[in-house]
Amino acid sequence: MDIKEFFEQSAGKWFSQRTSHHLAFRQAENGKSNIRIEMLAADDPEVVKLCQQYEVEPGLALCGARVTWDGTMEWDEDKENHKGSTVLVPIPDSDKPNEGRLLREMGYAEKAPVAGRYMMGSDDALTLITEYETMYSEERLWFASPNLRLRTSILKRFGGFSMASLSSEIRMGVGQPEKKAEDAANV
Amino acid sequence: MDIKEFFEQSAGKWFSQRTSHHLAFRQAENGKSNIRIEMLAADDPEVVKLCQQYEVEPGLALCGARVTWDGTMEWDEDKENHKGSTVLVPIPDSDKPNEGRLLREMGYAEKAPVAGRYMMGSDDALTLITEYETMYSEERLWFASPNLRLRTSILKRFGGFSMASLSSEIRMGVGQPEKKAEDAANV
Repeated sequence: MDIKEFFEQSAGKWFSQRTSHHLAFRQAENGKSNIRIEMLAADDPEVVKLCQQYEVEPGLALCGARVTWDGTMEWDEDKENHKGSTVLVPIPDSDKPNEGRLLREMGYAEKAPVAGRYMMGSDDALTLITEYETMYSEERLWFASPNLRLRTSILKRFGGFSMASLSSEIRMGVGQPEKKAEDAANV
Repeated sequence: MDIKEFFEQSAGKWFSQRTSHHLAFRQAENGKSNIRIEMLAADDPEVVKLCQQYEVEPGLALCGARVTWDGTMEWDEDKENHKGSTVLVPIPDSDKPNEGRLLREMGYAEKAPVAGRYMMGSDDALTLITEYETMYSEERLWFASPNLRLRTSILKRFGGFSMASLSSEIRMGVGQPEKKAEDAANV
């Protein structure tokens, strides 16, 4: 699977359960969210615009995806924190077709656009590495089945790992926003 | 890294935070445990005994490990459920040095010995697949750092995935049972 196929398989509506292990505090924080992922063509105006922001030639974009989420985490003071939207655009390396830069409009944890690195593994898992000013994030996403997408992430701050997270994402079907997770599982 | 090196790197005392996502119920269950992992030599009497139980020639064993755990999960009625011990013995395939059978004395979820399959990936992650009578378990273990071991597992029952879990394991040091997780992190 290449990253375009991974994006295509990700398109749709997902119900996500997320747990973060705060390692220093030995505490777990749970959250839930609804996620919608839409494919964007390589020549979509949003893809072209994002490339221009990063000063990347738009013709190098493989495709794009718009990701929209709306959720809650237990410890949130500001419940709006986990509502948002971003555009992702993979720009493959010229010499390595299965890895490259991942442009993103704006993620949950950052205030300014940051490009990450992506690698599609031979096991069809997608690894994303993003280095922020004071933080390092490593995510691994894979499909346990076409309707169950899993994501782990580890966060490093000030040189040490501070958090490990798991998201279990269950596909809710297209055009069936009222479909219950119980119906989707077993997945 | 081969599986023997993975076992060696795993030796020690660990504090583990575990969360299970029960997919059909959209519920997360948290737990904590202390884990101790001790390496056993290939000719250790416990390794030889386990091989004999599985009718495997003991000379084929690469090494062994004794894993002891003591923990709690929120939903447990019987708090003794998460206390136990097992011996693991890898028996590599003759034609594939990085995969093989993993003999185990007795795991948390089973009542009788079951051999799983292990694969060491080129990314130094250890994948374990165990098929029980009514259940399929796939685990992935890897070191984010020498002192932070992560483990995901997914459980399939009756043909569909029913549970996804994350364990974050922080090394507590050798001979320092009183060492606090706060001291170990950032890890």
